[in-house]
Amino acid sequence: MRVELLCTGDELVTGLITDTNSTYLEGRLFDLGVKVERVTVVGDVRPDITGALLEASARADVVIVSGGLGPTADDFTLECAAAAAGVPLEEDARVLGWIEERYASRGMAINPGALRMARIPTGAEPVRNPQGSAPLVIQKLGRARLFFLPGVPREYRALVDGEVLPRVRGWLASEPHRTFRAFRLLRTVRLPESVLNQQVMPLAPSHPRVVFGFRTHAPENHLKLMAEAPTQAEADAALAAAEAACRVVLGTHVYGADANEYAPALLALLSRAGHTLAVAESCTGGLIAQDLTAVPGASQVFLGGAVVYSEKMKSAWVGVPPDVLEKHSAVSRQTALAMAEGVRTACGTTFGLSVTGYAGPGGGTPEDPVGTVYCALAGPGFESRCERVSLAGDRDRVRLFAASHVLEMLRLHLLAAPVSP
Amino acid sequence: MRVELLCTGDELVTGLITDTNSTYLEGRLFDLGVKVERVTVVGDVRPDITGALLEASARADVVIVSGGLGPTADDFTLECAAAAAGVPLEEDARVLGWIEERYASRGMAINPGALRMARIPTGAEPVRNPQGSAPLVIQKLGRARLFFLPGVPREYRALVDGEVLPRVRGWLASEPHRTFRAFRLLRTVRLPESVLNQQVMPLAPSHPRVVFGFRTHAPENHLKLMAEAPTQAEADAALAAAEAACRVVLGTHVYGADANEYAPALLALLSRAGHTLAVAESCTGGLIAQDLTAVPGASQVFLGGAVVYSEKMKSAWVGVPPDVLEKHSAVSRQTALAMAEGVRTACGTTFGLSVTGYAGPGGGTPEDPVGTVYCALAGPGFESRCERVSLAGDRDRVRLFAASHVLEMLRLHLLAAPVSP
Repeated sequence: MRVELLCTGDELVTGLITDTNSTYLEGRLFDLGVKVERVTVVGDVRPDITGALLEASARADVVIVSGGLGPTADDFTLECAAAAAGVPLEEDARVLGWIEERYASRGMAINPGALRMARIPTGAEPVRNPQGSAPLVIQKLGRARLFFLPGVPREYRALVDGEVLPRVRGWLASEPHRTFRAFRLLRTVRLPESVLNQQVMPLAPSHPRVVFGFRTHAPENHLKLMAEAPTQAEADAALAAAEAACRVVLGTHVYGADANEYAPALLALLSRAGHTLAVAESCTGGLIAQDLTAVPGASQVFLGGAVVYSEKMKSAWVGVPPDVLEKHSAVSRQTALAMAEGVRTACGTTFGLSVTGYAGPGGGTPEDPVGTVYCALAGPGFESRCERVSLAGDRDRVRLFAASHVLEMLRLHLLAAPVSP
Repeated sequence: MRVELLCTGDELVTGLITDTNSTYLEGRLFDLGVKVERVTVVGDVRPDITGALLEASARADVVIVSGGLGPTADDFTLECAAAAAGVPLEEDARVLGWIEERYASRGMAINPGALRMARIPTGAEPVRNPQGSAPLVIQKLGRARLFFLPGVPREYRALVDGEVLPRVRGWLASEPHRTFRAFRLLRTVRLPESVLNQQVMPLAPSHPRVVFGFRTHAPENHLKLMAEAPTQAEADAALAAAEAACRVVLGTHVYGADANEYAPALLALLSRAGHTLAVAESCTGGLIAQDLTAVPGASQVFLGGAVVYSEKMKSAWVGVPPDVLEKHSAVSRQTALAMAEGVRTACGTTFGLSVTGYAGPGGGTPEDPVGTVYCALAGPGFESRCERVSLAGDRDRVRLFAASHVLEMLRLHLLAAPVSP
């Protein structure tokens, strides 16, 4: 099956935004064993869009088009689709109903922009968009099937996962000589990409049916394993063997697989053991709290986070003694330990975590320059511990890796001592 | 001048990496008044690369190609360039000298891969790469000039800035009828895209030299204005007139322009007036604190954030009276007001903000279903106020829009009463 992508929008050809939608879709299609053959990006220019639609549909079986479906005057992708197919646009009663329903539920009046979104090429099939007003539209053009999706990433991804991929999967299943694939993403932390590469690449020759790939997703690095074989059972077996071998060399650096992200994995570990958690953050400024609370149900485990961005609040909220601050400064082992213990006591949780450091660009001392972060863990049955880390990069990167470091202190503790006293 | 980009590499069509090189180059070209007409991405497939080179050079004056210049077996972009031009590849003595020098300086022996990089299409011009071994190659194909760059972002950017853009600038200056462009991005909040469109599109006919465009960047919507004229002065004047007219209808919904983001803009407003801020968050879980503290120098204004994810911490850290929680519940106007006032008192700041609500997917009551959020503002010289908002969407979206709503309460207050008592 030949698949091409077409992305439209001036913002994509003027450097305003990076096309992450295609990266997402390519990855999902690759998981199904489909390698995208070509991606074309054009601006909001009618003849360019129409021309690109005609070209892509002459080459490909499936063309997935994004952008230009919204309510504004520069949204005219479906006009181009109609022109390419030589059919008129017409208002679709189903789409109009969906839009009216959505607008009504938000107390908004239908306006001309909303009505634009209900006009689709004659003969095309609309599919309701669960996240927005503009529908997914499916159209045949020559031998190709065209999918038109909104460019808003949240809507795009929901429609890719919910509507596009299931259809592609169905078509693939009916192809005669297909290659079967099996895929696993192993998610690691605290492992630089070059080290990850060095550790697993010696395993590759023993697993000839498996392609080893790497992906950096700071602060994590991911190992992608893809097995190909003439049957699904053989692909699954080859993948399982390669995964097992990789897990042996990577050990606890692997925190999860596939779509399982870090924060839910850590919260699940805590929740299963009946533990609770509180966090005191200085330089990470709420990053840890917001990451954990983004997970539905986090309130079962996470009880409180103190963003103590001033000395006063370090004392007031998490009980750091003023003389510790005075003697050792706010960025010190002693302060980090007092913060972790203090927030644990204040919230009455099983564990307390803390971070204090210099995220930059200003601040720092000769002994503790920008990038120095103290991370501490307090909990039952062991002496509180603090680790000092030196992180390279800008403010965002220091904050990101500091948050990851202190959470990993807790995860490694839980792995080492699964049964808490 | 018509410019197209062509990017090659399997990693770009399988979701392994996102094409940020193009974003960079498009932005730099747009600064010169050049809008890229098309970007094409293909995998490491010889006929696909050769075909795309021929197509692009038939349409464009300049084609900037990246990837596939390195030492490994899957680097064959210059082979395709030679095939497209109908000329052989030949070893270039200058390039060989540069590579030998570079390898020698690193104590590395020349290997067959290194020699591959010295072979360029007959008649093409090589330019030394200051950051790597593979040279920039410039080739004429039909009426088009083709630039071949390595895909490694560091090398790509250095060659774009040092070699490609100066040449493009020179050609532009010698064009008889060139178009000059001026660009402004107006950033709005609390304005749905369809409403933004409705408000500004009636202005468009009065500004024929300006293209109006829109971009959604939740929770914000942005208006893009691009003026085109035969001189820079006319483009600037046309842009200024359109911008002024849009600002009149959009009023305070415009919080900033171009690269100026929301959190820095709000912190600057507070900082200029000598104000300080503290935040008590329940359902947003630290999102507001982390957004504000991501800005360098935030500690001048932001003193503390309490992520009070349990009733106990709402009382302990920000002094919500237990009877308020019992009588009105944690998600209520009374609790939100007590949180805003309490965090302001605890931190001793000019202003206190708070958010409490049901982000979902669980929770909610018949009166306050999932998506209901109470936002409150406390400060000097006015009675604390609370706004109840009903937000649609998933947990992430509710949190994002709730954070935006409460920050905007503060920004509007500052705009309405710039001189604080």
